[in-house]
Amino acid sequence: MSYGLLKGKKGIISGALDENSIAWKTAIKAHEEGAQIVLTNAPIAMRMGKINELAEQIGAEIIPADATSVEDLENLYTKSMELLGGKMDFVLHSIGMSPNIRKGRAYGDLNYDWFLKSIDISALSFHKFMQVGDKLDALNDWGSVVGLSYIAAQKTFPFYTDMADAKAVLESIARSFGYRLGKSKKIRVNTISQSPTMTTAGSGIGGFDSFFDFAEKMSPLGNATGENCADYIVSLFSDLTKMVTMQNLYHDGGYSSTGISEEIIEMMQK
Amino acid sequence: MSYGLLKGKKGIISGALDENSIAWKTAIKAHEEGAQIVLTNAPIAMRMGKINELAEQIGAEIIPADATSVEDLENLYTKSMELLGGKMDFVLHSIGMSPNIRKGRAYGDLNYDWFLKSIDISALSFHKFMQVGDKLDALNDWGSVVGLSYIAAQKTFPFYTDMADAKAVLESIARSFGYRLGKSKKIRVNTISQSPTMTTAGSGIGGFDSFFDFAEKMSPLGNATGENCADYIVSLFSDLTKMVTMQNLYHDGGYSSTGISEEIIEMMQK
Amino acid sequence: MSYGLLKGKKGIISGALDENSIAWKTAIKAHEEGAQIVLTNAPIAMRMGKINELAEQIGAEIIPADATSVEDLENLYTKSMELLGGKMDFVLHSIGMSPNIRKGRAYGDLNYDWFLKSIDISALSFHKFMQVGDKLDALNDWGSVVGLSYIAAQKTFPFYTDMADAKAVLESIARSFGYRLGKSKKIRVNTISQSPTMTTAGSGIGGFDSFFDFAEKMSPLGNATGENCADYIVSLFSDLTKMVTMQNLYHDGGYSSTGISEEIIEMMQK
Amino acid sequence: MSYGLLKGKKGIISGALDENSIAWKTAIKAHEEGAQIVLTNAPIAMRMGKINELAEQIGAEIIPADATSVEDLENLYTKSMELLGGKMDFVLHSIGMSPNIRKGRAYGDLNYDWFLKSIDISALSFHKFMQVGDKLDALNDWGSVVGLSYIAAQKTFPFYTDMADAKAVLESIARSFGYRLGKSKKIRVNTISQSPTMTTAGSGIGGFDSFFDFAEKMSPLGNATGENCADYIVSLFSDLTKMVTMQNLYHDGGYSSTGISEEIIEMMQK
Repeated sequence: MSYGLLKGKKGIISGALDENSIAWKTAIKAHEEGAQIVLTNAPIAMRMGKINELAEQIGAEIIPADATSVEDLENLYTKSMELLGGKMDFVLHSIGMSPNIRKGRAYGDLNYDWFLKSIDISALSFHKFMQVGDKLDALNDWGSVVGLSYIAAQKTFPFYTDMADAKAVLESIARSFGYRLGKSKKIRVNTISQSPTMTTAGSGIGGFDSFFDFAEKMSPLGNATGENCADYIVSLFSDLTKMVTMQNLYHDGGYSSTGISEEIIEMMQK
Repeated sequence: MSYGLLKGKKGIISGALDENSIAWKTAIKAHEEGAQIVLTNAPIAMRMGKINELAEQIGAEIIPADATSVEDLENLYTKSMELLGGKMDFVLHSIGMSPNIRKGRAYGDLNYDWFLKSIDISALSFHKFMQVGDKLDALNDWGSVVGLSYIAAQKTFPFYTDMADAKAVLESIARSFGYRLGKSKKIRVNTISQSPTMTTAGSGIGGFDSFFDFAEKMSPLGNATGENCADYIVSLFSDLTKMVTMQNLYHDGGYSSTGISEEIIEMMQK
Repeated sequence: MSYGLLKGKKGIISGALDENSIAWKTAIKAHEEGAQIVLTNAPIAMRMGKINELAEQIGAEIIPADATSVEDLENLYTKSMELLGGKMDFVLHSIGMSPNIRKGRAYGDLNYDWFLKSIDISALSFHKFMQVGDKLDALNDWGSVVGLSYIAAQKTFPFYTDMADAKAVLESIARSFGYRLGKSKKIRVNTISQSPTMTTAGSGIGGFDSFFDFAEKMSPLGNATGENCADYIVSLFSDLTKMVTMQNLYHDGGYSSTGISEEIIEMMQK
Repeated sequence: MSYGLLKGKKGIISGALDENSIAWKTAIKAHEEGAQIVLTNAPIAMRMGKINELAEQIGAEIIPADATSVEDLENLYTKSMELLGGKMDFVLHSIGMSPNIRKGRAYGDLNYDWFLKSIDISALSFHKFMQVGDKLDALNDWGSVVGLSYIAAQKTFPFYTDMADAKAVLESIARSFGYRLGKSKKIRVNTISQSPTMTTAGSGIGGFDSFFDFAEKMSPLGNATGENCADYIVSLFSDLTKMVTMQNLYHDGGYSSTGISEEIIEMMQK
């Protein structure tokens, strides 16, 4: 089902690795809703993924960019404006990586250089997307910028280690830069705090499966899927949500507002 | 601009008093998006308002109901199902009144019977809408229930007195009943925490004008209007937001996430 | 161990039913810290409890009062000032009861008269304690008012039904009345959101045991006990916390900031 | 007035620059309450400040340490244990600096190396204090770790730029490391979100004066002073608050819970 919600809109979608990615599903959905899209991902991620398939499917160009590099982002925006013939109406930031998690360092034994890398890749890149886009005047008035976050920014999930801190920065950047872009260009900036999702990235985290299960049992509607998330992102890119900004929006089947569920109580009683 | 987002959906919209009402604007917008609607309001409010004009404009029926009366709500649902030929996909609760505010009682001099009336009218009625709808099996799976709230539920606004407490209950009911309806029928329940809005109800509150102005200066995007809110409500009624539930969603141009704005700083410096 | 933290302070402590009550433990602790105390409880609760033992133990008077009755509270304050020879420096509100829980009504089948009773007893009584105390000028400058709350005000716990809504009001009242008393008399008003506690009241709620266990497993420090809570309340009555007001303070061993614990993950893996 | 609340306790206090510092006032207060203290500060800050006066006044040693250096922190803990004859019962982290603010870079024109420096100095150093202390087994069971934060972690204050992001990380670290230390050693970790305070650090931020004024007008109790904060920190170091952990605690005269005050409304009406 498509409604033409993004007809005439142009945007950049980062982070589509494979068909499990939320970014992948968002690109398809945004395309169906009438948007013109440029895809981007880190050069390394591109080698591992199958982003070319996606590009073909939706007739989009791919512009590789290391999201920690200001130059790469400058190139991304400049080329995107050329390709799409105008400024961007939306940007999806779906980028995160923690070397400490990758290499199995516990939170009480962090490598601090890697910590700063986690922040740079997973959060500061969100700032760079906006600062570069703003400086190049590449963002349209009333545009919409969305980043993907996780409830570990509010509560501790032991397996999530320094990504929790990175997500806290990501959400903070959404507020701080949202203030600026709101005043100057009426652009809104939000993060979506998504259910644990069976993506290739998500499933790399230790203990993910049992946590996925826990969240499923805890959420009255169950975990929100990547498809659900793509739908929600489209609503945030559309003109229906023009005055929602600087928010962290839970998209989680009610998980964030559930203290305990009957399923978990039953589990405890065994 | 309309997209057909609510094509085939049926719903009840309460609280449309006149063309300034958020409910009024929502009814028009939902109608444009393809929904079939039943309008309702309290018998007294109906005499004061011009709901008949609205009903004509969108070809809807009006079923009067005192939202504190279980019987009236039973009648509302039963008749709505008959009129629209099926169960409801959405419900908008836009009802609030505080006798203490009406009669100018300060928060340190509350009339306690009136306090309970404020709660009953402004918050418990939200529970009744759901309990009655659930018991009569009048709500469709994957439906959406929305209530209108205000940030006074989180922070103190002296002029808002016991309506703050009522909104706190309203939001609590959204969580608690959202849990139940989520599990049993995949129905989502949310409240929207809306900017101060120039409605007939809003402007009745003392100090409203200067507060409206303050919020306008504080919000990076300015205050969200009633039209904006109608758009947002439509997105919450649509299938794009199926997994958002038990949330209080700020729709306020960034007000809730702004500590201070440059305009307010300048004002202070004078 | 005692420090003389409340030397020269006078206060009212409500809700001491038996030696498991948080109020009971607070009375003992406050007495040890040098405070002069008046005890109060509802006439019915007094018949069931053993408050006389406590009164003897700490040399305090008991003034029965139905906390929903303005007259009873007027009598309580007037007599307390006579007995203690001055205004109150602190008040503990530890009162809560839900007829719907008592009589086993599910949240989807609430009795609405009982709902309003829950609000009146468990939340509005907190307002009455302050409004009456303020009107009678029975509260000292820089005094401290504390109410006991529970995290169900923020998240849904199915077994807690309408007490969740009552706690939401309680916390809202703390903010709204805290604003007034802060401005007029520098009095602070806070609620403590306490771990599930093995009191006679707590253990009356269905599913309490397995939830107590869940919270114990979830909280890095384990559940906070009634004794811990009494200590914390003393710190809030003392002069060390003069500028903390209108807050809901989690006293829960870290429960409120824990998304999942390793114990729960292990439980899931079985 | 002193109570002996910290009798027998040992701790490290960082960040005392001059007599306006919260850390300075905390050191004096903790000393009065019976604690043995080691003072620390960055070598540069020590040259500018007058920490020697403080050290003399309370008979404490100073161990210089760059809080971004793991080696320096190892030295700090090792020497502190020697000097005080045992492990630490409390640690105060009062460290923050943003090169972007120092050098007047706006949030839309951040220097990204400096951003990472802000994070490293103002937030990651908090993690290092805990990781190093934990690895050296230098922290006593039931100890208390406190960091100083600011409400810019939740809401945008334009003049605060990347320190907002740093404070968001600081608070996230308190939760994540609090979980670990809570489980392993019953140690609690919290941040205090303090009113704007007339310290040498605070007053260096542009627009600080008018914001200080705004906060004063907004807070029912007025802004909390440095002395107030020292009192509050002592309560968090004491045994009265053993079960409070992973919290961000507002110490701000009610600012955080006030939407608007009558003073601000009056100002708007002019």
